[in-house]
Amino acid sequence: MSVDLSKDFLEQLEIDLAQRQFTAYEELLHEGHPADLAEIMERLDFDLALVLYEQLDDEVGAEVLMELDEEMRSKILVDYSGQEIATELIDNLDSDDAADLINELDETQRREVLENIEDQKQAMDIARLLIYPEGTAGSLMGTEMIKVKDHWKVLECVREMRKQAEEIETVHAIYVVNEANKLLGTLSLKKLLTTSTRTPISEVYSQKVEFVEVSTEAEEVANVMQKYDLVVMPVVDPIGHLVGRITIDDVIDFIRDEAKEDYNLASGLTEEVEAHDSILSITRARLPWLLIGLFGGLLAASVIGRYDTDIGAIPQLAFFIPLIAAMGGNVGVQSSAIIVQGLASQALAENTTINRLVKELGVALVNGAILSVLIVGASLFLGYGMPLALTVSVSLFAVIVVAALIGTFVPLVLDKYKIDPALATGPFITTLNDILGLFLYFQIGRLILGI
Amino acid sequence: MSVDLSKDFLEQLEIDLAQRQFTAYEELLHEGHPADLAEIMERLDFDLALVLYEQLDDEVGAEVLMELDEEMRSKILVDYSGQEIATELIDNLDSDDAADLINELDETQRREVLENIEDQKQAMDIARLLIYPEGTAGSLMGTEMIKVKDHWKVLECVREMRKQAEEIETVHAIYVVNEANKLLGTLSLKKLLTTSTRTPISEVYSQKVEFVEVSTEAEEVANVMQKYDLVVMPVVDPIGHLVGRITIDDVIDFIRDEAKEDYNLASGLTEEVEAHDSILSITRARLPWLLIGLFGGLLAASVIGRYDTDIGAIPQLAFFIPLIAAMGGNVGVQSSAIIVQGLASQALAENTTINRLVKELGVALVNGAILSVLIVGASLFLGYGMPLALTVSVSLFAVIVVAALIGTFVPLVLDKYKIDPALATGPFITTLNDILGLFLYFQIGRLILGI
Repeated sequence: MSVDLSKDFLEQLEIDLAQRQFTAYEELLHEGHPADLAEIMERLDFDLALVLYEQLDDEVGAEVLMELDEEMRSKILVDYSGQEIATELIDNLDSDDAADLINELDETQRREVLENIEDQKQAMDIARLLIYPEGTAGSLMGTEMIKVKDHWKVLECVREMRKQAEEIETVHAIYVVNEANKLLGTLSLKKLLTTSTRTPISEVYSQKVEFVEVSTEAEEVANVMQKYDLVVMPVVDPIGHLVGRITIDDVIDFIRDEAKEDYNLASGLTEEVEAHDSILSITRARLPWLLIGLFGGLLAASVIGRYDTDIGAIPQLAFFIPLIAAMGGNVGVQSSAIIVQGLASQALAENTTINRLVKELGVALVNGAILSVLIVGASLFLGYGMPLALTVSVSLFAVIVVAALIGTFVPLVLDKYKIDPALATGPFITTLNDILGLFLYFQIGRLILGI
Repeated sequence: MSVDLSKDFLEQLEIDLAQRQFTAYEELLHEGHPADLAEIMERLDFDLALVLYEQLDDEVGAEVLMELDEEMRSKILVDYSGQEIATELIDNLDSDDAADLINELDETQRREVLENIEDQKQAMDIARLLIYPEGTAGSLMGTEMIKVKDHWKVLECVREMRKQAEEIETVHAIYVVNEANKLLGTLSLKKLLTTSTRTPISEVYSQKVEFVEVSTEAEEVANVMQKYDLVVMPVVDPIGHLVGRITIDDVIDFIRDEAKEDYNLASGLTEEVEAHDSILSITRARLPWLLIGLFGGLLAASVIGRYDTDIGAIPQLAFFIPLIAAMGGNVGVQSSAIIVQGLASQALAENTTINRLVKELGVALVNGAILSVLIVGASLFLGYGMPLALTVSVSLFAVIVVAALIGTFVPLVLDKYKIDPALATGPFITTLNDILGLFLYFQIGRLILGI
């Protein structure tokens, strides 16, 4: 079922491709799934991948191209003229994929492609899709779908569906529109199968239909489709005309990418990396956060430096530096993570910033109280003496409260200014909390220890 | 389109429910989407939610129940007898939901329910689904699907589909099996619509079909469905008999839950929390990681304690404690995160542990070299003097290498022992790296500074 990606297979394939020996791969080339072929191509040397690609039929080739990562796709497209892209690729793609492909081209190539699409309706459909800004329902939708008119009879409907189905790969839903193309509802396959052919569509279609507008944000689209378990959802223009449909596979990709991005930010990676990427590109993804960490560390050093005489007098003060720094960081990230998830699922919609901060303060006070009591006990038990135990305990409490408030406030502010709130879970907040925490610690130390 | 969840609406609803005034909510109660009704119920006082729930028709009620979170569902089910669950709920659910519901009951209730399901075939289907362990394809699948035999003609097929469709809500795919119920392929709706009614199915069905076995892990199911953009996928037993189908909505829930779990672990939350949960349950999710952090901080304090005379002699040594600790933690989490993602997408399948460690070592050496050079420069510039600059630089290099190796090794080992590798991104690794890093730092300090 799954395709062979073993080292042996790939090595043999490279040898055969280099010698232009394709006989052993007839089945793979003509029956293989585009996703499998793309996966194989990505594992090969680029030149040999190109040899493989050139053996594919136009239709399969176009789909394989869309499954490749963007970098490889653009390397392949360099050798294409606008005319070739239009006739060999665009013609074999669904409108949403076609629009995505064209969006990746440069200005000149783009115009050349659009001018060379023969089917005028297709060219118009694609041109229209290119208008929608990235991240909106319009940019995710395709125009291939089955539409029937409400005044038709079931028989007419089947006949029309048959005609439309010729051009559509999979039929997910049948949309019912009026003469002006306003979306009225859906007709289930079940109803179509179980109704007499003379029944008018208007009597059997369902008016319950979830839809989004072209300008709806992708995140909202994902939430609606997930909530209602939809496989496909119609998209309408601002006055209710049916203009496209979004299929769940595009939404899944979106959901996965978003989750990955948040996860990467939380774990200190600035770009998407995969374990089999090169050492250089993994380094590139990791270095920026580490540089911020380094800078933060130097700042922390200068904060501590202001208290060097205190440390000289009571070296034990230094023992708890990691504890204070780590706890500030942890609490801040926790707070931010809850906000980031809440913003993504729009569960925070009814909450004001003040509400959130008050609640977070509550959580921080509870956590802070528990941990402060524990640390006093532990410090005394370990023989650090009451003054130091008290210093650590009081500053821990203060750090937890401050870190929680910052961790809550920053992602909310970022979100307000349309910046990805997940940035807050990265090293900025942690570093900020580290430094603030140390400052609080030493100041409280001065007060309590009377240095 | 979306349902009204405003404070005003909910407050009015609570008042009306308390007075058993339902007239204003006829449409919501009878036409509302189960997902919306569930969302509303979750926002109400439990007693009033129950009043609302009791107004629902059995069929809608059963679906609403499955949309609620598990805690609320079990509170509602307490008042049900096994017989009621069987006739009012199970009868109105798809087999996969029915099995999930039964799985949540205790032993006695479970038996009572199974004995009271009237439809013998349904009872058998569900009993069979209960066997599959959680996290396998078998546990995700439902048994409702349209099957046709390969020796039928298209006409027969449509007639049979019509019969089967009566019992199925949405038709996603038509599966072709032989007389012995072995999965042979799929019949596309398009083919069905565009072929003469006298054509035998065997001539028009497609043998290309992606499927999984009942024992396939959910993660693999999710990967296959995503890779091939499938909306529904058939499930076969070990000898190829068609036993069920998995729909994409169940897989999306799985994907989302997994992503959330990883994200929570990486940000120090032990259980799923939402921003609108109570202060107590948010605290419960956050305290465990903070306690580990606290414990780690105390350990770090005792490590530093071993070097108190060194700090007494050179207080500046303490300045760089946060830098060393933070960098160790950051590098470790980055390394682990890459492994965790690689394991999830199975991109690491061909890689041995040794390969991974060697590559990670490469990345660490590059990062370490760059950052060490930078820190020497920065430290000298800031006037810390060569011996200290050298100490910080050498130990930073050592910490980065050690943290990277630990961050790579631990998730791989966890995975080998079937423990969630994402645990490695939590505070364990960070704490371990903090402590090891500090130990390295002070030891190297002794060597270089000659204390």
